[in-house]
Amino acid sequence: MRSNIDGPGKIGHIAKTNRAADAKLLPDLDAAIRALGLRDGAFLSFHHRLRNGDAVMLAVIDAAARAGLRGLHIAASSIFPVHAPLVRHIETGVVTGLCTNFLSGPVAQAVSTGALAQPVTLRTHGGRARAIRGGELQIDAAFVAAPAADPAGNISGTEGPCAFGVLGYPQCDALFARKVVAVTDTLVAYPAPRIQIAQDHVDFVVTLPRLGDITGILSGTTRPSDKPEDLAIARTAAAVIDASGLLVDGFSLQNGAGGASLATAAEIGHRMTARGITGSFASGGITGFHVDMLEAGLFRSLLNVQCFDLRAVESFRCDPRHQGMSASAYANPRDRGAVVDRLDAVVLGAAEVDLDFNVNVTTRADGVIIGGSGGHADTAAGAKLTVVTTRLTAAGYPKLVDRVGTLTTPGTTVDVVVTDAGIAVNPARDDLADRFRAAGLSPVPVADLHRLAQARAERLPRRATTGRIVALSEYRDGTVTDVVRQV
Amino acid sequence: MRSNIDGPGKIGHIAKTNRAADAKLLPDLDAAIRALGLRDGAFLSFHHRLRNGDAVMLAVIDAAARAGLRGLHIAASSIFPVHAPLVRHIETGVVTGLCTNFLSGPVAQAVSTGALAQPVTLRTHGGRARAIRGGELQIDAAFVAAPAADPAGNISGTEGPCAFGVLGYPQCDALFARKVVAVTDTLVAYPAPRIQIAQDHVDFVVTLPRLGDITGILSGTTRPSDKPEDLAIARTAAAVIDASGLLVDGFSLQNGAGGASLATAAEIGHRMTARGITGSFASGGITGFHVDMLEAGLFRSLLNVQCFDLRAVESFRCDPRHQGMSASAYANPRDRGAVVDRLDAVVLGAAEVDLDFNVNVTTRADGVIIGGSGGHADTAAGAKLTVVTTRLTAAGYPKLVDRVGTLTTPGTTVDVVVTDAGIAVNPARDDLADRFRAAGLSPVPVADLHRLAQARAERLPRRATTGRIVALSEYRDGTVTDVVRQV
Repeated sequence: MRSNIDGPGKIGHIAKTNRAADAKLLPDLDAAIRALGLRDGAFLSFHHRLRNGDAVMLAVIDAAARAGLRGLHIAASSIFPVHAPLVRHIETGVVTGLCTNFLSGPVAQAVSTGALAQPVTLRTHGGRARAIRGGELQIDAAFVAAPAADPAGNISGTEGPCAFGVLGYPQCDALFARKVVAVTDTLVAYPAPRIQIAQDHVDFVVTLPRLGDITGILSGTTRPSDKPEDLAIARTAAAVIDASGLLVDGFSLQNGAGGASLATAAEIGHRMTARGITGSFASGGITGFHVDMLEAGLFRSLLNVQCFDLRAVESFRCDPRHQGMSASAYANPRDRGAVVDRLDAVVLGAAEVDLDFNVNVTTRADGVIIGGSGGHADTAAGAKLTVVTTRLTAAGYPKLVDRVGTLTTPGTTVDVVVTDAGIAVNPARDDLADRFRAAGLSPVPVADLHRLAQARAERLPRRATTGRIVALSEYRDGTVTDVVRQV
Repeated sequence: MRSNIDGPGKIGHIAKTNRAADAKLLPDLDAAIRALGLRDGAFLSFHHRLRNGDAVMLAVIDAAARAGLRGLHIAASSIFPVHAPLVRHIETGVVTGLCTNFLSGPVAQAVSTGALAQPVTLRTHGGRARAIRGGELQIDAAFVAAPAADPAGNISGTEGPCAFGVLGYPQCDALFARKVVAVTDTLVAYPAPRIQIAQDHVDFVVTLPRLGDITGILSGTTRPSDKPEDLAIARTAAAVIDASGLLVDGFSLQNGAGGASLATAAEIGHRMTARGITGSFASGGITGFHVDMLEAGLFRSLLNVQCFDLRAVESFRCDPRHQGMSASAYANPRDRGAVVDRLDAVVLGAAEVDLDFNVNVTTRADGVIIGGSGGHADTAAGAKLTVVTTRLTAAGYPKLVDRVGTLTTPGTTVDVVVTDAGIAVNPARDDLADRFRAAGLSPVPVADLHRLAQARAERLPRRATTGRIVALSEYRDGTVTDVVRQV
């Protein structure tokens, strides 16, 4: 063929690019590990939408181990009890590094007792998105558990036996990882329906018999609690939000998926219904309970980073008012701002709260890791009103303490603590205290609640102040705000 | 506040990040230019979904001129006649550089006559996405014409008076530009409905009285032609596709929005209906005609990079089988493959075709620029069967020529030329020629069609082989395959 110009314009290399329909399809994860050309020390990423039903992460690490890889770094969005077999891979040196936004179960126990030579980095959901987009966390291969995928790698979250709905967490990974593998148990004809991650972000497609156990995927309480002590705290928290003046048309809310947290949302819903208030959005992990609120007209929309139950999946699939969002849109602290920065109120839990309103949701009273921020620190920072609900004691330990075992969420971002023995307002928010008093609520100094908690407690939390550092608690902006030491 | 660790763990800087509802809102484009901190020589990007009704690009460049900026580079996805006033900005030195995938009207005329000192780069739709993602085309500020946006910058394409539907072209810009400005005439309450570009990709939001003229947005013929000569070519093209063996269940098709091209799709649709064939997808710019085919069950889905009429907008809004895609997913030639690589057949037009099956859709017979690839070269490369339809002559000039005036789409990616005087098959596709003969079609050597065209022509195309280079025609992979010289 002739080129129309000399020099750089050679066109002899130009040919058709049509693909064999299965060009990206690999027979199994072993083939994927080979095709990726991974080396020892590679960073592999995983998302947690399969939660405690996830079979994908271990299947991948097993394959990597079979391939003889060592020194791998797992960049997860969360680790659950189901990931227990990872401990063996840590012991054998296949896995030597871990970063995650939430760490629980046997892997958390192993990390706490020093199984890893290098400290785990615990990030927030928004901090992880920031770290990936900013190049601080460079992922060699992202393995995206995909409820359905087509042979070209288009990924759908709303089809297949493990349809979990919104693919909020892996979107940053898919954009920025060097290589991306869609792992699915439901290979669909091209093009996949309701594509959430498109083929131009995916290198390979691998099928597994089953992504996981759907009952584990949908773990967690997703209906309001009916325990009297939870309902008492919920009523107080709702009264606090109401008294703040934020409960007007356009109101936005995030609350966790626990029974007490949903009870608070239910209380708020009653007040909204009674007064004819229409909120703008509810965000975060979304449950059927939130869908009920949407359909009752209490909110104009839902902004969903992960579905917590099948009703949420079905609503996301069918109702355009129910929109998905990436972890970056949800909580990335970079200068463009995120959904969390538009929240009026967030209702959060706590393992411990201290005299400076700092919150720990990372370690237990005995110092063992039991979680991490997830979106806790992100929403606390973003919301105009951050309400932390907690009982005074749990399992005999005080939950109000001198100083939190691990600082997960800085007290500068926490406005009110609601307990079963009263509420305390951050001294930086005198404006709120005035409003609460005017509304007949009676805030007390946090030291009073602390004193009560200490009096009720049967034992003291253990604090390791020396010893090897097993985890770094990283704030959403990348600052290391605390360390966790070996127990 | 106390930090729990010494050294790097200072938390004194941590504070609330809640935003004022209007933190990103700027009063006008002048304020946007200031806020962006643009300098002389900046690269500003624009998408073409407003087509010949676009008022955004000029409003931005006018503001840049008022701010005293000079030497700007416009990175557009297409330039239309409506952009004529850009010529003035070129003459005054406000704009000194241009790259685009399609260039028409007075700006094309000005470029052809040497108005710009540096050559324009003409890319394909996929090549532009590749250049942006690969860092070859670095955008300082992307101005995204947004049918609706909320104050946080979430952009929707399906609301507002200029609702044009799919935001396929600006998605790469929004991901990779240093700064992103949503320009809208419809500021909606937070959060915007049906978000296509999320707030974490947007720095500023500016309102204009009107994005453009909706009648210009929806320009172009979007119903099949009823001219006998078009219908004859359409029937032959459909017979060619049928005879290729590709017209079976799972068939995929792209065709342009012109009347002749739609007539071909209509002919194919008749054959599909008659034989009960269900295709997998139709892609590209989508018209109401494609929606009819979807709703008649002829295709399982539509993959839409831009809506060509209001019926396509409405279908995209309501029917999940009708999916949007980014320009990158559509046509990016990088190794992950794009939608075009999954096409069975594409039906394309031509200004000129030469003896090597090369196609020119960039320049007229007199050498003046009249377009450029858009998706032409992308789909030709991707499709298993690339059919170029053309009459033998137009306006007295031959359309079959020795050598195309500008090489837009290499002949190695063109399989069949269908004319009003017969068909020619690329010699590299003897397999097709055999099939066509078996089906009663009678392919002839392209030289025969060329000879006929020369005989019918009344004048010869003008070819500038010396003189200043005014444009580079860049293939999708970045190779410069041709140059355009000053006329």
